[in-house]
Amino acid sequence: MAYSGQDGQSGLPQGFLWGAVKAGIKASGNPDVAVAVAPRGASAAAMYTKNRVVAAPVTVGRRHLAATGGRVSAVVVNAGNANCATGEAGIQGCVETCVAAAETFGCIFDEVFPSSTGIIGVPFPAGKVVAAMPAIAAVLGDGAEQAEAFATAILTTDTKKKVARATIDVDGVEVRIFGVCKGAGMIHPQLGPPVPPHATMLVYLFTDIAADAAQLREVMPRAVEDSFNSISIDGDTSTNDTVLLLASGVSGVRLDDRTAEAFESALKLVCGSLAHQIVDDGEGVGHVVTLAISGAATEADAKTVARSIAHSPLCKTAWSSADPNWGRLMAATGYSGVSFDPANVSIRIGGLPVFEGGMRSPAFDEAAAHEAMTAREYTIEIDLGEGEASCRFLTCDLTEEYVKINADYST
Amino acid sequence: MAYSGQDGQSGLPQGFLWGAVKAGIKASGNPDVAVAVAPRGASAAAMYTKNRVVAAPVTVGRRHLAATGGRVSAVVVNAGNANCATGEAGIQGCVETCVAAAETFGCIFDEVFPSSTGIIGVPFPAGKVVAAMPAIAAVLGDGAEQAEAFATAILTTDTKKKVARATIDVDGVEVRIFGVCKGAGMIHPQLGPPVPPHATMLVYLFTDIAADAAQLREVMPRAVEDSFNSISIDGDTSTNDTVLLLASGVSGVRLDDRTAEAFESALKLVCGSLAHQIVDDGEGVGHVVTLAISGAATEADAKTVARSIAHSPLCKTAWSSADPNWGRLMAATGYSGVSFDPANVSIRIGGLPVFEGGMRSPAFDEAAAHEAMTAREYTIEIDLGEGEASCRFLTCDLTEEYVKINADYST
Repeated sequence: MAYSGQDGQSGLPQGFLWGAVKAGIKASGNPDVAVAVAPRGASAAAMYTKNRVVAAPVTVGRRHLAATGGRVSAVVVNAGNANCATGEAGIQGCVETCVAAAETFGCIFDEVFPSSTGIIGVPFPAGKVVAAMPAIAAVLGDGAEQAEAFATAILTTDTKKKVARATIDVDGVEVRIFGVCKGAGMIHPQLGPPVPPHATMLVYLFTDIAADAAQLREVMPRAVEDSFNSISIDGDTSTNDTVLLLASGVSGVRLDDRTAEAFESALKLVCGSLAHQIVDDGEGVGHVVTLAISGAATEADAKTVARSIAHSPLCKTAWSSADPNWGRLMAATGYSGVSFDPANVSIRIGGLPVFEGGMRSPAFDEAAAHEAMTAREYTIEIDLGEGEASCRFLTCDLTEEYVKINADYST
Repeated sequence: MAYSGQDGQSGLPQGFLWGAVKAGIKASGNPDVAVAVAPRGASAAAMYTKNRVVAAPVTVGRRHLAATGGRVSAVVVNAGNANCATGEAGIQGCVETCVAAAETFGCIFDEVFPSSTGIIGVPFPAGKVVAAMPAIAAVLGDGAEQAEAFATAILTTDTKKKVARATIDVDGVEVRIFGVCKGAGMIHPQLGPPVPPHATMLVYLFTDIAADAAQLREVMPRAVEDSFNSISIDGDTSTNDTVLLLASGVSGVRLDDRTAEAFESALKLVCGSLAHQIVDDGEGVGHVVTLAISGAATEADAKTVARSIAHSPLCKTAWSSADPNWGRLMAATGYSGVSFDPANVSIRIGGLPVFEGGMRSPAFDEAAAHEAMTAREYTIEIDLGEGEASCRFLTCDLTEEYVKINADYST
C-alpha cells in the first residue's frame, strides 16, 4: 500500500456531489452558498472552535451530529455572514436553511450540516440561503468543475481557493481523500479536543473509504493536531471554525487494521497541505515561518513556546523586515511560562546559528541571517535544551498590510 | 491627612540627587547614562519582570537587594543597550559599572542598583558607563533640572519624558513621592509577584518617608498590580522590566498605621499616572482604550478577559479605525478561557450600548459608536453577567505606525 498526494481537482472521491450559486450575501456579488451532497449519506465526524462564543451553525451542526450519531447527507455553507452573536433569530435562521436543504436534497433534517463564515453579529439572511436551494440542486455534479465551484464559494478574504487530495491504493482499489478549506483572517485554530481555533477556518474532508463515525472520530484529532491546531496567523480564535470529515464508503474499502495506517497518513497529508495553504494565504502575509521547537520537556511545552513566539507582535514585525532579531525570540520564549535555562538554548534561523550558550552565537552573521529571512518561507529552530519533546508550528509575519486589511474591515 | 498630585518637577523628595550625561551608547548621541544617589542611603524594594530570560542588571540588582536586605545608595541606569542575553560577559560588565559607581559615589558595592534598557543581545559597553561616572558626579544635584535630566536620559523610543508626583501632609510636614519611568515598545508588564512584564519598562519611585524595606515590599505590589500590571501595549513582556521604590526617610515622617493609608493612596496616584503615560506614549498609539470588565466571577477572570482583548490584533486594528466591531470583542472574550454565557454579556463602547442579550443591541447606533471611538481616549465596558468581580485595564490600538516602528527597529 502506498499513497500519493497532489493538489488539484482530479480523482475526486465517489459518493459526493458539489455545487454553488450566488445568493447575494457577499457584497462582491460572487458565489456565496455552497452545497455538498452525499446521495447515499456519509459517516461523519467534526471538530469545532473551542471559543465560548460559537456561531449558530456550530450549535446546530453539533446538535445534528449528536442526533444522527454521525451521519450527514448534505453540507450547506454560506460565506459573507457568520451567523454569530445573532441570538435566537440566528439559530432559527440556521434551522430554516437546514429544513430547506432537507426538502431540496431529499434527506432528513438532522442529516444536514450547516456552516457560515463572514462578519459576526449581523442578522443572518436565511431567506437568501433558502431561496438559493433550487438553483444549487440544478447545478450539482460530481466533477472537478462543481468541486471547484464549492471551493470558491466558501472563500471570504482568501485570495485563492484551497484544495488538496491524496489517494491510497488497497489491492488495486483506489481510496480517495479530497479536502477543501477557507482561511484568511482570525487564524489560530484550537479545535477541541485537543486544543481551541480563530479567524474562521472551515475545512471539509471528503473520502470514499468505508468507515463508521466512531472510527472517524478517532482518526481525526491526530490529523488535526499536527495541522490545523499547529498554525497561527494572528492568534485570534474564531467563533465558527469547523473541520468536517465525511466518508461515503462508495470505494468499498473498509477502514480497518490493514488500511488504517495508510489512510491516516493520507489524511494527514491532505490536512497538512490545507493548513499550509491557509497560512500562505493569510491576510497581508509576506513570510511563512516554520517554528521548529525541540529539546522541550514535553510536547505541550514545545507548543506553548511556539504559540508565544507566533503571537508576539515584536517577533512578527521583525520577520516582516527580515530582521534576525533573536533577542525578541528569546524574550517571547522567556515569557511563555515554560521553564528552561537560557544558557542551554540554541537558535538557528534558516539553518544559520544566531544564539547559543546564553548569548549571540560567535558564528552569528547578521547579513547572512537577514538574507535567509528575505525568502518567502524559512524555518526558525529553537532547541530549549531541556528534554526530547518537539513540535513544528506554522505561522507568519505581521505586516502593515495586515493592519490595513483589518482596520478597513467594516462592522 | 490629604494628598494632592500633579505631574511636574517641583517639590522633589529630600535625600536624593540626580544626574545624567552622554556616554555614547545611544546612536542618537543623546544623554544615555542616568544616576540617582541617596547620600545617606535609602530603604528599597523592587519588582522585576517575570520573563525567564532576564537581563544581567536584573540578576545583579536582585542579588544586591538580597545582600543588603533592601538598601540602595545609588541607582545607575543606561539606555541604548539592554545588557540582556549577553552571557557571563554581560554580568561582568554590569558588576564593573557597579564597582565604578560605588567608588565614585562613596557607597558599598552592594548598595548600587543597576538598570539597562535598549537592544537585546548586543555586547554591553561597560567601559562607556564606567568612563561616564566622574562626569555624572560633577553634575549631580537635587533640583528639578537634574531630576529632569535623569527622566530624559533613561528614555529609548519614548517620545516624551514621564514623571509624576504626589505629596501627603502629615501634621504640617510634607512627605513627597516622585516617580520617573520609561516605556514605549514591548509593554505588558507582569511584575512578580503578583503577575509577569514586557517592552522594557523602568520605573523609579523616590520618597522621603521613613520606612524599612519590609514595609516597602508590602505596600509596593498593591500599587503595581492596579497600575503597571494592568496595562498592555503589544502583549510582549520584556526581559528588563523593573520597578524600584526608594525611601530616604529624610522627611522624618514614619510609614505607620497613621500614615499608611494616605501614603499608599499617594503611591497609587503616582503609579497610575506613570502607567497611563506609558500607554499614551506607546509606539504608534492612536487611541488609549480603557477596558472596564465587570460581572466576572473573580478578579482573575476579569483580568484574563481584559488581557485576551488587549492582545487581540483584530480588536486592536479595529480600534485604529474607530470600527465598533463588537463581534471581535465577543470573539476575544470567548477564547479567553473564562467561563460565561454570551446571552448574559453586555458591551458598551464610549457609554453607548452595542451588545446585549446574546446579540447586537437594539439601541446599537454604528455611526454614534464610530464617532465615540474617534476620541483619543475612551472606555469599553464589558459586563460578563457572571459575578461581582471587576477590573480596569489600560491598552491601545494596533496601527500601521506600530508595525513600521518595530519592523524598522534594527538588530
